[in-house]
Amino acid sequence: MGHQMAYQSLTRTFQRLHHFAHLGAIASWDQAAMMPAKGNEARAAAQAELQVLMHQLITAPELAQQLRSAEQENLDEAQRASLREMCREWRQANLLPSELVEAKTLAASRCEHAWRSQRKNNDWQGFLPNFREVLRLAREEAALLAEANGVSRYDALLDKYEPGMRSAEIARIFDDVKSWLPGLIERARAKQAGETVIRPQGPFPVERQRELGLEAMKLLGFDFDGGRLDVSTHPFCGGVPEDVRITTRYRDDDFAQSLMGIVHETGHARYEQGLPRDLLSLPVGRARSMGIHESQSLSFEMQLGCSRGFLQLLAPMLRRHFGDQPAFDADNLAKLFTRVEPGYIRVDADELCYPAHVILRFEIERALIDGEIEAEDVPALWDEKMMAYLGVDTRGNYRDGCLQDIHWTDTFGYFPSYTLGAMYAAQYFATMRRAEPGLDDKIGRGELEPVFGWLRENIWSQGSRWSTDELVRRATGEALTPAHYRAHLEARYLG
Amino acid sequence: MGHQMAYQSLTRTFQRLHHFAHLGAIASWDQAAMMPAKGNEARAAAQAELQVLMHQLITAPELAQQLRSAEQENLDEAQRASLREMCREWRQANLLPSELVEAKTLAASRCEHAWRSQRKNNDWQGFLPNFREVLRLAREEAALLAEANGVSRYDALLDKYEPGMRSAEIARIFDDVKSWLPGLIERARAKQAGETVIRPQGPFPVERQRELGLEAMKLLGFDFDGGRLDVSTHPFCGGVPEDVRITTRYRDDDFAQSLMGIVHETGHARYEQGLPRDLLSLPVGRARSMGIHESQSLSFEMQLGCSRGFLQLLAPMLRRHFGDQPAFDADNLAKLFTRVEPGYIRVDADELCYPAHVILRFEIERALIDGEIEAEDVPALWDEKMMAYLGVDTRGNYRDGCLQDIHWTDTFGYFPSYTLGAMYAAQYFATMRRAEPGLDDKIGRGELEPVFGWLRENIWSQGSRWSTDELVRRATGEALTPAHYRAHLEARYLG
Repeated sequence: MGHQMAYQSLTRTFQRLHHFAHLGAIASWDQAAMMPAKGNEARAAAQAELQVLMHQLITAPELAQQLRSAEQENLDEAQRASLREMCREWRQANLLPSELVEAKTLAASRCEHAWRSQRKNNDWQGFLPNFREVLRLAREEAALLAEANGVSRYDALLDKYEPGMRSAEIARIFDDVKSWLPGLIERARAKQAGETVIRPQGPFPVERQRELGLEAMKLLGFDFDGGRLDVSTHPFCGGVPEDVRITTRYRDDDFAQSLMGIVHETGHARYEQGLPRDLLSLPVGRARSMGIHESQSLSFEMQLGCSRGFLQLLAPMLRRHFGDQPAFDADNLAKLFTRVEPGYIRVDADELCYPAHVILRFEIERALIDGEIEAEDVPALWDEKMMAYLGVDTRGNYRDGCLQDIHWTDTFGYFPSYTLGAMYAAQYFATMRRAEPGLDDKIGRGELEPVFGWLRENIWSQGSRWSTDELVRRATGEALTPAHYRAHLEARYLG
Repeated sequence: MGHQMAYQSLTRTFQRLHHFAHLGAIASWDQAAMMPAKGNEARAAAQAELQVLMHQLITAPELAQQLRSAEQENLDEAQRASLREMCREWRQANLLPSELVEAKTLAASRCEHAWRSQRKNNDWQGFLPNFREVLRLAREEAALLAEANGVSRYDALLDKYEPGMRSAEIARIFDDVKSWLPGLIERARAKQAGETVIRPQGPFPVERQRELGLEAMKLLGFDFDGGRLDVSTHPFCGGVPEDVRITTRYRDDDFAQSLMGIVHETGHARYEQGLPRDLLSLPVGRARSMGIHESQSLSFEMQLGCSRGFLQLLAPMLRRHFGDQPAFDADNLAKLFTRVEPGYIRVDADELCYPAHVILRFEIERALIDGEIEAEDVPALWDEKMMAYLGVDTRGNYRDGCLQDIHWTDTFGYFPSYTLGAMYAAQYFATMRRAEPGLDDKIGRGELEPVFGWLRENIWSQGSRWSTDELVRRATGEALTPAHYRAHLEARYLG
C-alpha cells in the first residue's frame, strides 16, 4: 500500500479507544454480575472518568483533518470500509455538543430513577414532567443529527442503531405486518384452544438449570475458552469479543425462561466470538447493527431453539438434568414453547405477539420525535393500539402499559431492531433451507454446523464491512423480505 | 482555607488517576479470578494502554510546578500530609526514564516466562543470563533513585515498599533475630517431638470449605456489601477499597491452607475496607506500606487466627461444616497450626521458620543491589544460609532453593516487609493486651470488636497520614520493638 499516514494514525486512535472500551466493558459486566452494592459509587465515578477520556479522544480536533486526509490516501477496499465506519463513529460522537450529552445523561438518570417507583405506583402524571424533558432533549439531538445527515428527525435516531435504515421503509414493512398479524394471532389461538399442553413440574434446582444451560451453550458452539456464563438481574451479552460474558437469571419453578434466555444470549455471543479477529480494534470489525445482532439471538432462540429438531435434542437433556416427565416429550415442548397468549408486557410476549408490541412502540416514538404528538398523548394511543393489535385493554393501567419499558427514559429509535432482527433471522433460515433441504433432519440429529457455518461465513465474519442492506443481500440473495417472516410464523403456528 | 489553586488542581489529577486505577484493579482481579484463557491477549493490551495513560498523567510537565506551588499554599496539617504523599508518588514515577521502565518490564517478563520451565528443570544456568539482565536494570533503577533520594542503592528500592525504612535498621533487627531464632526453632522442635497431633481426615468438599471460609470472614468482620470471596491460582487481596476482592484456592484433602489463607486475606481486606473513606482518591488515603499491610494480614492469621481463643471459636465451626473429628478439638488445632518443620519453601513455611527465609533473602538481595556480590554468587550463599538458619541442605537443588520465588524476576527490596509485618503485628497485640488484660478471654467468647476497634482506630483509619514510624509510635507508644515478636514466639512455641 502507498502512503497512509492519516489512515494509520486513525487506526492507532481507534485502537486506543478499543483498549479503553475493553476495560469499560469488563467493568460494566462486573457491575451487573459480580459487584457488591457498596462498590457502586466508586465504579460509577471510574466509568464516568473513562467516558470523559474516550469522548476527548474521539473529539480531538486533529481527527477531522485526518479523516479528510485519509479519504485521499491509497486505501484498499477493506480499508475504505474501515474508514467509512471510523467516519460514522466519529460523526456520532462529534455532532452533539457535550452540554447536550451531559444534559441527556442527567435527564435520563433522573427520569429512570423516579420511574422505578412511579411504575410501581401506576403514576403516569408523576412520570410526565421528567418524560417531557427527556423527549425535549431527544428531539434536540434528533434535530442536530437530522440536519447533519440530511434525514428526518426520527430517522436520525434510528440510524444510530440501524445504519442506513429509514422509518418509511420500516413503516411500509410494519403496515404489512399489521394487515395479517391480528388475524394470524386469532387463528393460532383458535387452533391452540383445542390442544392439551402438559406443564413441567418444578422445582428445578438452580444448579441443575445452570448445568443444563452450560450444556446447551456447548451444543450451540459457545467457546468457553473465550467467554463465561453468570447471573444478573437483567440478562445480557457483554464483555468483549475476545471474552464474551453472557448472563441469565434462574427461578426454581421455571426452567424455560432461563434456558431459552441462555440460547438467546448465546446467539449474541457467537456473533461476537465470530467477528473478524484481525479487525476487532476497529469499528469495521464490530457487529453491523442492533437489528443484525438481534437476528443472531433470534436465529438461535426462535429459528433454531424452538424448531422441532432442536426440541428433539433438548428433550433427553431435560430428562437427564431434571428426571423424566411427560412434559419433556418433544411434541409437548413444541406446544409449550409456541403457546400464544396476548398480554400486557413486551418482554414476556410470545413470538407471535411480540411484533405487535414493537410496532406500537415504533409508531408512538416516531410520532413523538417527529413532533406529531406530545408526551401526554402517549397513554391514549397506547390503549388504542393495544386493543387494535392484541385485543388487550390497558386503560388506566400505565404500570403494565406505557410505563413498562425503560427505553424511553433515554433511547428512541431502538424498538424496530427487535422485529427487524426476527425478520432477518427468518430470511437466513429460508436461505439455509433452500441450500440444504435436509437441514431440519440434521438439526434433529444434532448436526448444527451447517447453521453455524452459514452464519459464520455470511454474518459473523463480515463485521461491519458492508452496509446492512448489502450484508443481507450478499447472505440471502435479496434485500430484507418480510414474507419469509410471515411464512415462518404461519408454518409454525398454523402448520 | 486560603488560596489553594495548585493543591486543588493536584487533587483533581490524583482523582483521575484513582478512577483509572479502579478500572485497572477490577480488570486485574477479573484476570486472575474470572477471565477465560483466550481473553488474555486483549486484556494485556488494554491494561498496557491504561498504564501508558496513567504514566502520562503522573509525568505531565505541569505537575512539577504545581507540587512546588502547593508547598507555598495555605494548607492544613491533613492537606500537608496529603501533599507529601502526592510528592512521593510523583517522585517514584518521574525519577525513572520511561525507557528504563520499559526495559525493566520486558526483562522481567522474559525472565519470568523462562523461569516457569527453568524452575521445573532445576536449570540455574539457564536462568542466570536473564537474571543478570534483570539485576543490571534493578541496579540502574536503584542508582537513579538513590542519587535523587540521598540514600544507598538498596535502601532506594526498599523505600518503594517501606517508605522511610533503612536497611541498616533492618540488618540490626534481623541480626538480633538470627541470634535467637535457630535456638528457638530447635527448642520448639524438641518440645513438639513428644507431642501427639491428630491429623484431620478428609476429604473436605470444596463447597463446604467455601461456606466455612465465608463464615470465618463474617466472624472477622468482612463487609460483604463491599467485597467478595472468589478462587484464583495464587490467593490475593485485590479490587478497590470500596469493593475488596479476596481469593483463595481449595484442595479437598486439606481445609487448613484455604481457611487460614482466607483469614490472612481478610486481614488485608479489612485494612482496605477501613481506610479513610473521604480520602480514598488521594495517595494519603491509601495503605501506609507493604509491611503495615502485612501486619494486618498477620494480625488476623497469626496473632488472632492461631490464638487459643480463636481456635475455640473455630472448633465448633469445623464440626458443623465437616462433621465431628477428634482433630477438631481446640487443643489439637493449636498443635496442628503451630507445628514447626524447617523446609525448603518460603510460602509453605510455618510461623517460626518463616523469618529465616526472609532474612536469607534480604541479605542476598541487599548484597546484590549494593554490588557486593554478583548473580552467580547466589546459589552458594543460599546453601550456606539455609544450612545456618534452618539446617536445611539445598546444594544443587535450585528448584527448591534460589529458583523458588518469583520476586527477583522484577522486585528487589520487598522481602523484609513480610517479617516487619509479623513484628508490627506482635507489637500491636502486646499493646492491646496491656490495655485490656482480658482480651484473650474475650476472643474465646467471640468478642472480637476490641481487636477490630483497636486496628480500625490506630491503623486502618489513618491511611498514609503519618510516616510508618510515627504511625507505629502513635499506635503502640514506641518505635518498632522486635522484642514483642520474640516474646510472642517464645510464649507460643515454648510456653
